[in-house]
Amino acid sequence: MPIDDIDVSGLRPLFAARSVAIVGASNDPTRIGGRPVQYLLRSGFRGAIYPVNPTRSEVQGLKAYPDLDAVPGEIELVVVAVPTPLVGGTIEAAAAKGARAAIIFSAGFAEVGGEGIAAQAHLARRIRELGMRALGPNCLGFYNSTIGLTPTFASFLQEPPPENGRIALATQSGAFGSYLFMLGRRRGIRVSQWTSTGNEMDVGIADAIAWYAEDASVSVIACVLEGVPDGRRFLRALATARAARKPVLLMKCGATAAGAAAARAHTAARPVDDAAFDAVVRQGGALRLFTTEELLDAMYGLQMRPPLRGRRLGILSISGGAGVAMADVAVEHGFELPPMPGGTQERLMQANRLATMSNPVDLTAQALNDPSLVKEPARAMLSEGGYDAIASFFMNYLASPVNGPQMRAALAEATEGFSDRTIAIASMASPEVVRAFEERGFLMFEDPARLVATLAAMASVGEALRAPAPEPATLSPLPLLDGSESDPARCRAFLARAGISVTDEGGEGDARPAGGRGEDLELVLTAHHDPTFGTVIRLARKDHELETELSVGVGALGRAEARAMLAGLRCRWLLEGTDDRPPMDAEALVDAIARLSWLAAANEGRFDRIEVDPLVVRSRGAGCVVYSARVTSRRPD
Amino acid sequence: MPIDDIDVSGLRPLFAARSVAIVGASNDPTRIGGRPVQYLLRSGFRGAIYPVNPTRSEVQGLKAYPDLDAVPGEIELVVVAVPTPLVGGTIEAAAAKGARAAIIFSAGFAEVGGEGIAAQAHLARRIRELGMRALGPNCLGFYNSTIGLTPTFASFLQEPPPENGRIALATQSGAFGSYLFMLGRRRGIRVSQWTSTGNEMDVGIADAIAWYAEDASVSVIACVLEGVPDGRRFLRALATARAARKPVLLMKCGATAAGAAAARAHTAARPVDDAAFDAVVRQGGALRLFTTEELLDAMYGLQMRPPLRGRRLGILSISGGAGVAMADVAVEHGFELPPMPGGTQERLMQANRLATMSNPVDLTAQALNDPSLVKEPARAMLSEGGYDAIASFFMNYLASPVNGPQMRAALAEATEGFSDRTIAIASMASPEVVRAFEERGFLMFEDPARLVATLAAMASVGEALRAPAPEPATLSPLPLLDGSESDPARCRAFLARAGISVTDEGGEGDARPAGGRGEDLELVLTAHHDPTFGTVIRLARKDHELETELSVGVGALGRAEARAMLAGLRCRWLLEGTDDRPPMDAEALVDAIARLSWLAAANEGRFDRIEVDPLVVRSRGAGCVVYSARVTSRRPD
Repeated sequence: MPIDDIDVSGLRPLFAARSVAIVGASNDPTRIGGRPVQYLLRSGFRGAIYPVNPTRSEVQGLKAYPDLDAVPGEIELVVVAVPTPLVGGTIEAAAAKGARAAIIFSAGFAEVGGEGIAAQAHLARRIRELGMRALGPNCLGFYNSTIGLTPTFASFLQEPPPENGRIALATQSGAFGSYLFMLGRRRGIRVSQWTSTGNEMDVGIADAIAWYAEDASVSVIACVLEGVPDGRRFLRALATARAARKPVLLMKCGATAAGAAAARAHTAARPVDDAAFDAVVRQGGALRLFTTEELLDAMYGLQMRPPLRGRRLGILSISGGAGVAMADVAVEHGFELPPMPGGTQERLMQANRLATMSNPVDLTAQALNDPSLVKEPARAMLSEGGYDAIASFFMNYLASPVNGPQMRAALAEATEGFSDRTIAIASMASPEVVRAFEERGFLMFEDPARLVATLAAMASVGEALRAPAPEPATLSPLPLLDGSESDPARCRAFLARAGISVTDEGGEGDARPAGGRGEDLELVLTAHHDPTFGTVIRLARKDHELETELSVGVGALGRAEARAMLAGLRCRWLLEGTDDRPPMDAEALVDAIARLSWLAAANEGRFDRIEVDPLVVRSRGAGCVVYSARVTSRRPD
Repeated sequence: MPIDDIDVSGLRPLFAARSVAIVGASNDPTRIGGRPVQYLLRSGFRGAIYPVNPTRSEVQGLKAYPDLDAVPGEIELVVVAVPTPLVGGTIEAAAAKGARAAIIFSAGFAEVGGEGIAAQAHLARRIRELGMRALGPNCLGFYNSTIGLTPTFASFLQEPPPENGRIALATQSGAFGSYLFMLGRRRGIRVSQWTSTGNEMDVGIADAIAWYAEDASVSVIACVLEGVPDGRRFLRALATARAARKPVLLMKCGATAAGAAAARAHTAARPVDDAAFDAVVRQGGALRLFTTEELLDAMYGLQMRPPLRGRRLGILSISGGAGVAMADVAVEHGFELPPMPGGTQERLMQANRLATMSNPVDLTAQALNDPSLVKEPARAMLSEGGYDAIASFFMNYLASPVNGPQMRAALAEATEGFSDRTIAIASMASPEVVRAFEERGFLMFEDPARLVATLAAMASVGEALRAPAPEPATLSPLPLLDGSESDPARCRAFLARAGISVTDEGGEGDARPAGGRGEDLELVLTAHHDPTFGTVIRLARKDHELETELSVGVGALGRAEARAMLAGLRCRWLLEGTDDRPPMDAEALVDAIARLSWLAAANEGRFDRIEVDPLVVRSRGAGCVVYSARVTSRRPD
């Protein structure tokens, strides 16, 4: 399978078109062919707008043309809002006119199966032959309020869009994307760009990510996808965004078998190895969210504040119970909750004897009538506690007309000068009060658990963006499979040439470790070819012949990426050692994983599966060794 | 430790008091001592109200008394709103006056540690000696709007309470409980009773559950707790509620070490074995939730509809993407998603060619302008699909002033006659539109994942309430430990006398299975004495000498309860068998677990720990056998 690189500049006629024709343009601004005209007229688009309609000379006050050929000027982008059978002809006419990009609203292609699949494949081939780029079919178009380019029939633009922000959204499903947009708009989340990709015949979520990564008006990229047409392009798109230091938030539907079957019926998306997708997300430095609420919360958090600089969380509460609940959730989300320094605790207790000043800091209801009892501890948590973020709970007290503004002032003074920290508040208050706190930079929630989960997402994003870019494979040249590796001993020798330790305890045949070393850890390491992701590396334990505790990596892995795979194993405690047992040679294991991935990537197309079983990890310093391995040759597609 | 049974009738003078004195009553209705007076006056309480205040002859229009002794009538309940040092004297005076119950608002007891612990212990002793029941200290009192009894200083009653419903709430934390109440009130959740238990010196969450279980005005019991003073009483309280067929929804804070430490600082709650607590919840037929949002969602669902009759879920969506997302969440929550019957699908497709009529049923945007395209599939899902519940997604289309009411009528007609099913809708709409749908019995959400999670909670509640009550132990008399069981062979013989299979392959010493049967499953089964829960049974696998895959039961277990423990093991697939391997003798394992639990419960106080290691489970029919076991005698407390 040839790897298409992501041609961002080729997307310019689509995403930054300077002239747009709408084929099937309607004079009725509520109809599918009428909405893009209305939106373009309203959004301040500076380019040319050409409605094409064979039965009207004017559409929504614009001169209309009977066909594309009749349009006097140049056309970069053609919006195709015509019945399904007319799509092919419209694309040909667009190409003849010199258009470089198309958006196909029409449905009835691959998502209906059978003939629809063939029709879409034919259309995709023509698009490629004509040198065009196309969004859709079965999509709602896109929207960029920053430049006023709104070739979409999304109904949500009938209400005013939010003021321009720095969040871009890309969703495969138009309706689901619209829903996210609307929920977000009500919450003040400023999505200023949105792309719906539909069947992804050509342009997909990966292209949108890469485009947004290079768009200076975008700071955060959020995506909802069902399928991954090409896992390697997707990983490269994520890498582009990471290089631009832009968080990518991903929600992928179709993770379960039932969901995948539904996704196939919806956008003809091919089922995707969900564990490999997780690996791509991790390796690409993106963050996966699982519900619309989680996704919107993360968008909200990153719209307001930068990613967290670390995972040291302070909890500040006027209710001990809420503090306890937040502490539980925080630990589950991987936060550290170090206590306040002892001296600080003692000093603060002077003013509030019923309080607890450790972490959680529980101010009790004592603090409600005296803002200084909030201000001093809050400031001390930042200056002396050194927390990266504060999760706080103020019940409904911020809503009080008297105490609320005082408390806001106290918190604002307490946090002044700590612009690298984030303060989030769980409270029940009116939208006006919430907005007043948000304007001071506080994140506002009602549910304490969602508050903590959002901070955790912001911490994960920070970690991903701070991680060094993956280092390339360091071994060259890598040995190539020559077909003789069906012999176990030759297979081991092949691995040995890549610098992987092997043993021939078993002589010419398969080797098995002699029983009795309870001490060692036996793993199974495989590389296989996946139609979506290419080389996929799997590390597992064997339990009664079933592979469990699976951890996955994709492509040629750097050592940091191989090391990250170990974090996915439940048995990592064995690798790390315990009071009773020494740590194991995790670095040797990391080296073996990385080397196998380089070998597999270099030999892509020559094998279906390379399986090392068992790979035995010994105590630290004693290495990690292949006892037995086998290669399954590539079956022709 | 003596086991106190739950004396529900003894709680009547507290929870159904006919006369209330407020010591520390204030004329100012905003003060702690003033609020209960104000609330009682306003709530229609029919009993006598006696403010006690040494400096005033009248409080809020009521005659006030200088002390309790001066009150002319009988007093059942005394509300203690005085400074901490005066609490003891007030209790003595209350007892002298013949009061049978007290609510102690005052803080500064066990939660502050040191002397506070001693003061609380002393107070608890006196309360018991005086034959009184007491709520608190460090609590906000309780509230029962059904009978107008509102001895609380919770600020949320300053706004009107919701109309009377059938939900009772019990929370250890007053502030957290208030917050839940307020969030719920805004959402239309009618909490008509609430108890805050604070330090739980005497009356705790278990008592509140048992009281609500017997209160005919209550149908659903929701609780938030931090500690469990007596796990066995708690289990009996849950059993009472299950016998009354009332769902109990539990949120327990302090599940993590950090949370438990915070809970200790907050209400002096002793850390609790969280896995054992989970077992109590399961064995008691309750449902554990983990966030305020989950808890409120479950309260909302069960206020509107009965628990689900099963786990067959149909998904109905106008967006394929949302359908896919809901399918994923549904599978993760244990729902089955059977497809619609083939003939039904074909019939329905006649009217909507672009739709998918399997499951999810994806109506596409086609259905938006024709309510019959919603009505017919919805009705067919109930009548022909036979789903127990329908999870649906309608984006923002129900909000349309024209289509919304038509859609509501169509859905109401479609679901008529199916009162045993539940239809939940994810949609973005105004509060008025939401209320109109709720009045027709539809559950309304914005987030599709929360919708599915709530249905799952309602399904779990249904399963728990349908489960047969635990059967008692069937072996009698059970052998008693006589101290000779430190000898391995005698220990095995002791187990054998309880009907547990043992082997003496190892002769007089410890027996170990001979290596080589990869086929068998080796487990570790232990019984130990826990200060909170009494007998705790743990089943685990051993992985490099560490016990993993822990599953826990509490007390003498019925076979169904022992069987439920197996569901908690990751290796249950081994027990169930796979294509490659036969199933194992799970029933023999269940029998061994149950018998060990009976033995342990009968020998409570005689041992700290009985450990069976390994317990070897063989293939089905071949039984399960103890190779080695040891007993650790009880160390004096």
